[in-house]
Amino acid sequence: MVSEVSPAERESGTSFLPKFGADGLLTAVVVDANDGSVLMVAHMDREALDATTTSGEAYFHSRSRGRLWKKGETSGNVLRVEEILVDCDQDALVIRAQAAGPTCHTGARSCFYRRLEGGELQPVA
Amino acid sequence: MVSEVSPAERESGTSFLPKFGADGLLTAVVVDANDGSVLMVAHMDREALDATTTSGEAYFHSRSRGRLWKKGETSGNVLRVEEILVDCDQDALVIRAQAAGPTCHTGARSCFYRRLEGGELQPVA
Repeated sequence: MVSEVSPAERESGTSFLPKFGADGLLTAVVVDANDGSVLMVAHMDREALDATTTSGEAYFHSRSRGRLWKKGETSGNVLRVEEILVDCDQDALVIRAQAAGPTCHTGARSCFYRRLEGGELQPVA
Repeated sequence: MVSEVSPAERESGTSFLPKFGADGLLTAVVVDANDGSVLMVAHMDREALDATTTSGEAYFHSRSRGRLWKKGETSGNVLRVEEILVDCDQDALVIRAQAAGPTCHTGARSCFYRRLEGGELQPVA
């Protein structure tokens, strides 16, 4: 049985009560611990969250592969977690991390390497 | 008919080809244009994205209310958009914005006002 959590308890309490969506996932925004810039956005299920808090390295749930995914498991570009921030309704996290290398699978430092300008994408300087 | 977009085109091209999920949404991370800190995470459908790019103020799709939602429509705490960054697979955006007031509905400047520490939530200093 899932116990009900009041919005007030979720918003103002000290209990960590992560709210996974209907798909079992919450949103994780990874920011660079050095300058705060956004490196990537991914998703965590309970398994990925537990693996992250236990190991100190970032794990996600790969929606395309349908399985637990350690960031950097093949590239070596792991994310060492320094801090986890939780939002008001506890369905999103900000993960402050030290990146061992480029975070994006394209080789870019951040997945956000383009800006929208006049309806088209331009490289971020 | 939905035309197929190759991963390469999506990742390296200049065409803005936002990838909405099965629920019709993509993830939007709002960061403060002044210091880059994360203010909130929300979702946009096509309607919200178009309203945002057309007006220059941030609109989202409220999942709980099932409708278009202009941030600050009741509180007046609108988000003036300065830049929109797009990630590699175009299913997440970073919105750099000037916030007219506190972004969180709780009155906090950012929705991320707590950190996870020893399994409990502590206020961010």
